[in-house]
Amino acid sequence: MSDLHKPNRRAVLAGGAAIAAGSAAYAGAPDPLITETRDWAKSLGDGVDATPYGLPIRFEDDVIRRNVEWLTADTISSINFTPIHALDGTITPQGCAFERHHSGAIELAKQDYRLMINGMVDRPLIFTYADLERFPRENHVYFCECAANSGMEWAGAQLNGAQFTHGMIHNMEYTGVPLRSLLEEAGLQTAGKWIFVEGADASGNGRSIPMEKALDDVLVAFKANGEALRKEHGYPVRLIVPGWEGNMWVKWLRRIEVTDQPVESREETSKYTDTLADGRSRKWTWVMDAKSVITAPSPQSPIAHGPGPLVITGLAWSGRGAITRVDVSLDGGANWQTARLAQPGRKMAMSRFYLDIDWDGSDMLLQARAMDDTGYVQPTKTQLREVRGLNSIYHNNGIQTWWVRETGEAENVEVS
Amino acid sequence: MSDLHKPNRRAVLAGGAAIAAGSAAYAGAPDPLITETRDWAKSLGDGVDATPYGLPIRFEDDVIRRNVEWLTADTISSINFTPIHALDGTITPQGCAFERHHSGAIELAKQDYRLMINGMVDRPLIFTYADLERFPRENHVYFCECAANSGMEWAGAQLNGAQFTHGMIHNMEYTGVPLRSLLEEAGLQTAGKWIFVEGADASGNGRSIPMEKALDDVLVAFKANGEALRKEHGYPVRLIVPGWEGNMWVKWLRRIEVTDQPVESREETSKYTDTLADGRSRKWTWVMDAKSVITAPSPQSPIAHGPGPLVITGLAWSGRGAITRVDVSLDGGANWQTARLAQPGRKMAMSRFYLDIDWDGSDMLLQARAMDDTGYVQPTKTQLREVRGLNSIYHNNGIQTWWVRETGEAENVEVS
Repeated sequence: MSDLHKPNRRAVLAGGAAIAAGSAAYAGAPDPLITETRDWAKSLGDGVDATPYGLPIRFEDDVIRRNVEWLTADTISSINFTPIHALDGTITPQGCAFERHHSGAIELAKQDYRLMINGMVDRPLIFTYADLERFPRENHVYFCECAANSGMEWAGAQLNGAQFTHGMIHNMEYTGVPLRSLLEEAGLQTAGKWIFVEGADASGNGRSIPMEKALDDVLVAFKANGEALRKEHGYPVRLIVPGWEGNMWVKWLRRIEVTDQPVESREETSKYTDTLADGRSRKWTWVMDAKSVITAPSPQSPIAHGPGPLVITGLAWSGRGAITRVDVSLDGGANWQTARLAQPGRKMAMSRFYLDIDWDGSDMLLQARAMDDTGYVQPTKTQLREVRGLNSIYHNNGIQTWWVRETGEAENVEVS
Repeated sequence: MSDLHKPNRRAVLAGGAAIAAGSAAYAGAPDPLITETRDWAKSLGDGVDATPYGLPIRFEDDVIRRNVEWLTADTISSINFTPIHALDGTITPQGCAFERHHSGAIELAKQDYRLMINGMVDRPLIFTYADLERFPRENHVYFCECAANSGMEWAGAQLNGAQFTHGMIHNMEYTGVPLRSLLEEAGLQTAGKWIFVEGADASGNGRSIPMEKALDDVLVAFKANGEALRKEHGYPVRLIVPGWEGNMWVKWLRRIEVTDQPVESREETSKYTDTLADGRSRKWTWVMDAKSVITAPSPQSPIAHGPGPLVITGLAWSGRGAITRVDVSLDGGANWQTARLAQPGRKMAMSRFYLDIDWDGSDMLLQARAMDDTGYVQPTKTQLREVRGLNSIYHNNGIQTWWVRETGEAENVEVS
């Protein structure tokens, strides 16, 4: 950019790269945006009555959920993607958090809401929404990732943008009641080893969850990022199953049956299982393994300036625990640098990472590689395919590559 | 409520209160909301194209910012309040985070944005928005509280709701560049002891900040809760001054002048100073001291059920550091119980607290009292008035009382 200075040696910041941004205020032609009084400094702006509930400014109207027409062409079973390429930080605003439903988003009022617990309990119970509000609550930030996130990439680099390759994920602060409290209230019997959870929508979307998880950290949640769940995220109540695939986070939660064995429903047999090269399928692959993606630069967020200081940023998460480290490669995995985590990793929550570099203007093969507190290291796509073959659509947590060209534009590619 | 059981001894949970929620599924008349197939389980809901940017469901349309007509009757200088009585957790969604402007919310596009740093620097600089994006970024959750929050309460209990008494506050995850980096880039001179910061709106809203704070934790932020700032919060760039009064968090940030002394602008002399009983005024009262409020039950969130398990919840924060403890009184300050913090306190960020009680159905005088990691204890209103008199409108962090009646309704009162 013409108004950028060359790097100067005085301003040596983190990472050793000199920052060249800014222009001398009084060098060259005066900038009328500074020297002249603009309209917005001469007249009144909007009063506080303008927006009782505020929306993004019109200039940001491209920061929206998007779908892929050919992926889910009907409204019965559909999905859209979080615009992670345009976000920063770790919290996903509800308004642009991806949605996935099997029979559409239903409208269910609080007064019509009921949650039944039945099966192997001493006392089958029906809870109203107001009942749930009387149990002790917890708050936790957790990511929710669809098992099929990055699923199209099993067949090679296909979708050109982080929103589409990795956007079936969001990360929100949930408020809810531990499921453990409700099961204890119903008098959980010792023979009960599983629960089967169902939604109130037409799909039902039933899933079996082992009792150990149900009694550990599962929440029956009614708020996300402080306010009520959005309709498309299961208003008024959804299940939160930290670190486990999003399909188990049943929306419009209607029924929890305590059983002595799993139900083996459609959603955990013909769907949400991983068919291997030899035709056998892995099942009960609930945990979302450690994964990361560079959100900028990326195909939808090209570099908008020339050589010099460049912020590389992205997201990392692990269903097994906390992210402890993210490495970034500029050359397709030959060399790695450890990125800076914006905060210490939190269990089953997204971490934001940054790598501040002095870009020389040549093309790059950008990759990120996540590690978690169990010692797990995110694999390459090649490593994944060697073990899993090419039949699956779920649980692709392979390392993503963006080819960033000299122009700053980026493209989804694979390196061997 | 008729469908609640009496407490049973088996289900003894945190706090020792037995939870009675839920009803026996097969006792009494069947509940058609469980036994009959409802419309929402028989037909398709909305597809993912319905809301590229999602909004709250229509049933939540009372969870909005509100103003008080008589408080700021013009659009030139106006404020509204966060509906904290209806929120939970700690994150405030941008859409319902309070706004305060001195000349209205202006519309300023990124390409028209400039930030000038001048004064006692080696190299005056003008930054474009794209320039700012090239500096190393940080993420932090911070609260922003207007100095006048609870200001009407100096004159006694007046506004009947936590939204109005304590709603000039929000708590968001910010992404931005440390101001330190920009000052270093400009070549800060050792004689520079203060900065004067101005907005691009007609009010300018200029404030002086000592250099020690400017170099410590002040951020030049462009995102909140992951996405761009809303127009009313200073899009595209605002200043974040952690723990200090909201008026210093200059929106539409336009200019930072490095000076050797404070400017003593209107906003820090005739306004945002605290006039004492003897007519003298305290100035440079930047820090927002430790404070708390019970958000539910409260006048806008009455108890919707009879005696038995009741969740009391609220928010606490301190501009001096992290909240370490919150106590709750049911009897106007005679006896106190330590509440449960939902997370360990974070510096200059909101904490959510809960007290789970077995309500006997009698009336209560509910109070919360916050403590921070400096040892500061939130004072009573009486204690505050003894020191500050009644002339001030700012910095009222006295303990709030809600009188909760047997009906569950609550009212703003004071106890001596």
